[in-house]
Amino acid sequence: MIVFFNGQFVPEEQARVSIFDRGFLYGDGLFETVRVANGKPFRWDQHLRRLWTGLSYLKLELPFSPEDLTVIATELVQRNQTRDALLRLVVSRGVGPRGYSSRGTGHPSVVMSLHAAPGIDADVPRRWRLATSSVRLASAEPLSMFKTCNRLTQIVARAEADAVGADEALLRNAEGWAVEGTGSNLFWIRDGAVCTPPLSSGALPGITRAAIFELCQRLGLTCQETNIRVEQLLLSEGVFLTLSSLGMVVASQLNKQPLGHSATADRIRDAYAELLLSETQP
Amino acid sequence: MIVFFNGQFVPEEQARVSIFDRGFLYGDGLFETVRVANGKPFRWDQHLRRLWTGLSYLKLELPFSPEDLTVIATELVQRNQTRDALLRLVVSRGVGPRGYSSRGTGHPSVVMSLHAAPGIDADVPRRWRLATSSVRLASAEPLSMFKTCNRLTQIVARAEADAVGADEALLRNAEGWAVEGTGSNLFWIRDGAVCTPPLSSGALPGITRAAIFELCQRLGLTCQETNIRVEQLLLSEGVFLTLSSLGMVVASQLNKQPLGHSATADRIRDAYAELLLSETQP
Repeated sequence: MIVFFNGQFVPEEQARVSIFDRGFLYGDGLFETVRVANGKPFRWDQHLRRLWTGLSYLKLELPFSPEDLTVIATELVQRNQTRDALLRLVVSRGVGPRGYSSRGTGHPSVVMSLHAAPGIDADVPRRWRLATSSVRLASAEPLSMFKTCNRLTQIVARAEADAVGADEALLRNAEGWAVEGTGSNLFWIRDGAVCTPPLSSGALPGITRAAIFELCQRLGLTCQETNIRVEQLLLSEGVFLTLSSLGMVVASQLNKQPLGHSATADRIRDAYAELLLSETQP
Repeated sequence: MIVFFNGQFVPEEQARVSIFDRGFLYGDGLFETVRVANGKPFRWDQHLRRLWTGLSYLKLELPFSPEDLTVIATELVQRNQTRDALLRLVVSRGVGPRGYSSRGTGHPSVVMSLHAAPGIDADVPRRWRLATSSVRLASAEPLSMFKTCNRLTQIVARAEADAVGADEALLRNAEGWAVEGTGSNLFWIRDGAVCTPPLSSGALPGITRAAIFELCQRLGLTCQETNIRVEQLLLSEGVFLTLSSLGMVVASQLNKQPLGHSATADRIRDAYAELLLSETQP
């Protein structure tokens, strides 16, 4: 595979960063995972906006503009002759002097790569078994607003889920509210309304999460941000997760207990599949 | 400089990791910074013990034993013909499939490098200006027990300190207690007793922190773990920070207000300098 690495398109084997890159040493960077369908990155502008908010918070200046990255993404897809893929964009602060101070760092690392995409056919059944993680997220923590390269909390939680045969972990915050999956936002349906935790709970402002808000409006569904306990999820009409790679995934189980099957969730899933196709059509 | 990288000693320019290394992508790794004096790594066994506790928590298996790493560290110091340095040991989970699950990852990356050491002469005046950071640490969070490669909280806090002309940031936890610096443990002296926050506050179990406990016992000083508010630090008899690279550093200011100068702190600093020399003598 050809990847983009610091200004050049190179075979992936040749794309290597210094052992003194602050991404490798401290996770000092940000990333985005973007669905490519019909050769086009879906909701690319939203991903770039979130990335730039994070760059600004971390005071990390890229040598590329959003427009540059758009041109690069297009060329990357063309060079790899792929139509359906996941595009991963990673930026780190690059090499600097030893220590946490970002003084004296100059050249960020910028990487773009493509990865195998899951099928985009909305009819493929995808139902996840969830398991509550013992790991807690910090709520109202500025860094939780971005996809930073500090992902050990998610890695530990995901390992717990793997160990009990679940497909995704459900993370709670310090106050005990259910927040999100390791790589997905959480939604549930209650009294016909589509609910998701507010960002103040520590949930990532997911690009797919925002797309679900739009779809609910179009479908005439009530959508609200509210907190919920894990036990209450079991009493809801249905639970689903959203993530850029797969879009929307219905949850079938939570801690080995069955979850409700909601016709509303099915409607949203179908509408999301249509949205993806319509926005990326040639 | 010659570095150790995945089984080989190579010039640092040749030590490069894959852009798909989970250290670079997610900070999925651990590190230790060890003072080398008289050609010997100081308190090496303690550093390795902390590293191995973290490896076990993260279920990360190294292809090297602690004994192997000891031999490698010795050879690294010899090859670089240095007597005084900082040794940085970084391990990451290496390359694996896309996503947070650590399934399918096989070959951790192991890096050892040497960096310029600060002077070891205890008479060199080192007094730090501290500034309270707006960033909060999670308390009672398992990951805070290890030096993980997830260091964005520390990087953001350190940037705040840099911005106000301070030498180190002081971090509080969600409950508002003072916890530690970005790369240093916090101590203060009150009624002649040497105090430091308990690990339950979110403080890192620093190797130098533990050495200070030992020294207090030898010097007949009371040492206690207790919580403190930032404002109370200003009323203490003196404040100091501990870190492997510099040992002990007295704080002269906190948020631009002067801190007390304690003869007890001076005694501990001198005793620490002696300890370093005696344990590393040829």
